[in-house]
Amino acid sequence: MYIGIDIGGTAIKAGLVNENGEILYKKEIRTRAEREYKDIERDIIELIKDLIKRSNEYGKNVKSIGLGIPGIGDVTGDFVVYCTNLGWRNVPLGKNLKSQFNLPIYIENDATVAGLAENVKGATKGSNSSIFITLGTGVGGGIIIDGKVYSGAHGTGSEIGHMIVGENFYDCNCGNNGCLETFASATAIIKYTTKIIKHGNNDTLILEKTGGDLNKITAKLVFDCAKEGDKVANESIDRMVKYLSIGIANLLNTLDPEIVAIGGGVSKAGDFLLEKVRKQVGSYLLYKDIKYADIVLATLGNDAGLVGAAMLGKYK
Amino acid sequence: MYIGIDIGGTAIKAGLVNENGEILYKKEIRTRAEREYKDIERDIIELIKDLIKRSNEYGKNVKSIGLGIPGIGDVTGDFVVYCTNLGWRNVPLGKNLKSQFNLPIYIENDATVAGLAENVKGATKGSNSSIFITLGTGVGGGIIIDGKVYSGAHGTGSEIGHMIVGENFYDCNCGNNGCLETFASATAIIKYTTKIIKHGNNDTLILEKTGGDLNKITAKLVFDCAKEGDKVANESIDRMVKYLSIGIANLLNTLDPEIVAIGGGVSKAGDFLLEKVRKQVGSYLLYKDIKYADIVLATLGNDAGLVGAAMLGKYK
Repeated sequence: MYIGIDIGGTAIKAGLVNENGEILYKKEIRTRAEREYKDIERDIIELIKDLIKRSNEYGKNVKSIGLGIPGIGDVTGDFVVYCTNLGWRNVPLGKNLKSQFNLPIYIENDATVAGLAENVKGATKGSNSSIFITLGTGVGGGIIIDGKVYSGAHGTGSEIGHMIVGENFYDCNCGNNGCLETFASATAIIKYTTKIIKHGNNDTLILEKTGGDLNKITAKLVFDCAKEGDKVANESIDRMVKYLSIGIANLLNTLDPEIVAIGGGVSKAGDFLLEKVRKQVGSYLLYKDIKYADIVLATLGNDAGLVGAAMLGKYK
Repeated sequence: MYIGIDIGGTAIKAGLVNENGEILYKKEIRTRAEREYKDIERDIIELIKDLIKRSNEYGKNVKSIGLGIPGIGDVTGDFVVYCTNLGWRNVPLGKNLKSQFNLPIYIENDATVAGLAENVKGATKGSNSSIFITLGTGVGGGIIIDGKVYSGAHGTGSEIGHMIVGENFYDCNCGNNGCLETFASATAIIKYTTKIIKHGNNDTLILEKTGGDLNKITAKLVFDCAKEGDKVANESIDRMVKYLSIGIANLLNTLDPEIVAIGGGVSKAGDFLLEKVRKQVGSYLLYKDIKYADIVLATLGNDAGLVGAAMLGKYK
């Protein structure tokens, strides 16, 4: 039995997870991210104490504690190096948990643990190598190689969203231009759609559905209008699909995994998005007629973070 | 003791290599690539027979036969799927060698085996994860993960040269636009330099040194002129360095290896190139202030292919 903790900007989810990635018990608290690090750490410690107590009811020992964070840990597992949402920088979360509990502690990026969860019981289950791409406000990634989490020599691997794939009309938050995130995230879809409407593409359902208020544009709205055949919406989605396909092809040309799963809010566009991406990825590959990775939609929902964090104890 | 065979367009090099990657005996024949596949295969078989005979003189058994090819093999190791230089398509090289010799046969891309050789006894020796980038007529790559050759689930991984990193004024041989190869290879340097001179940048040493004949431009000449401070040459090299740095940063953001080695003809520009690339890669990373891979020059010369091919028996 493993403890998994999914630390997000709004909620901290914690649970007991068995060998198969099934959640046996789950508890959730509000993060209240505006608080001091120490206060949030205290809450996490309380959650873990409670889970360890609960684990006795199942008659099984807790083997490890895994944490998924919206940031990255260092290679020793002692420190969280960055966690921008929470305002954390070099906080000793791993170190303090190790001294508090006599158990292995694992800390990984939230996209990476979601990718692991998909590999254990979701869309990429049964594969030996997979890449998980989460399309949300930003773009994140999780890489599984040889059935294990791959996070690189310095813990900074799988930052797929910051792969530079072209030139864009606005810079990425990271300071660079052309990051995949600036083409393929929900934010990117909103920015580009707003731009082309402002530049005079007024004959669009989007204006109708937002009552002309460009601030009301969402990625979901753009996809919905594209599905209805709206030209402006389709121009925006086609551009997003082009660069997402380039990003995926770059990963395939380099890592050639068995399977790629697309998750995150934007992936709710479903088959409409998937079919377009599948059609294009092949054209950007060097070896177009050799079998390459299946591209599928992620299947796990909100619990992927918790399950993946717990599974770090088994697959890291 | 291992047999390594480096199959190139002009020569086939074969040798006996010990556990440490040292060449004990070496033999080279001309490829005469215009011949039928069967004739070249017969030569390879003769070379191997000779090497096995020689191995007796060292009192050690041959453990395996590894081949480096300018193309890719299939995952079973039975077929060479592509080998464009030699006109091979789906030839049963591995299968036939397996039936001829009672030994494990390994076939890998030549950049991949050169990367392995660097990891065994060259620039990336001692590292657990490394990426080798060869800059020549094209751009190739070799990826080492967990001390072993990484070639992906379908054998098509590590094709770094075809990672799309921007938009270019000419298309790649593979049919796509924006491949790293079209920015960072010798061919790319020549094409871009020729283009800017044709567009009116006439005040350059390059014209002086080629006697005005643009067909005489080489990557080496452009680097030499850049080192002398020539403005046009430096414009061309700066562009090459920009995209090479983006390509390397994309690999670091994704794979985060311990070390990156740059080899191939273009790398003979040495520290002049290396210093520029080192300066820029950091700026394209997401985590700019976390330690990242050292970037170094490859140290093995022409024998890298032979040594790496032999070492497949130990590290694949």
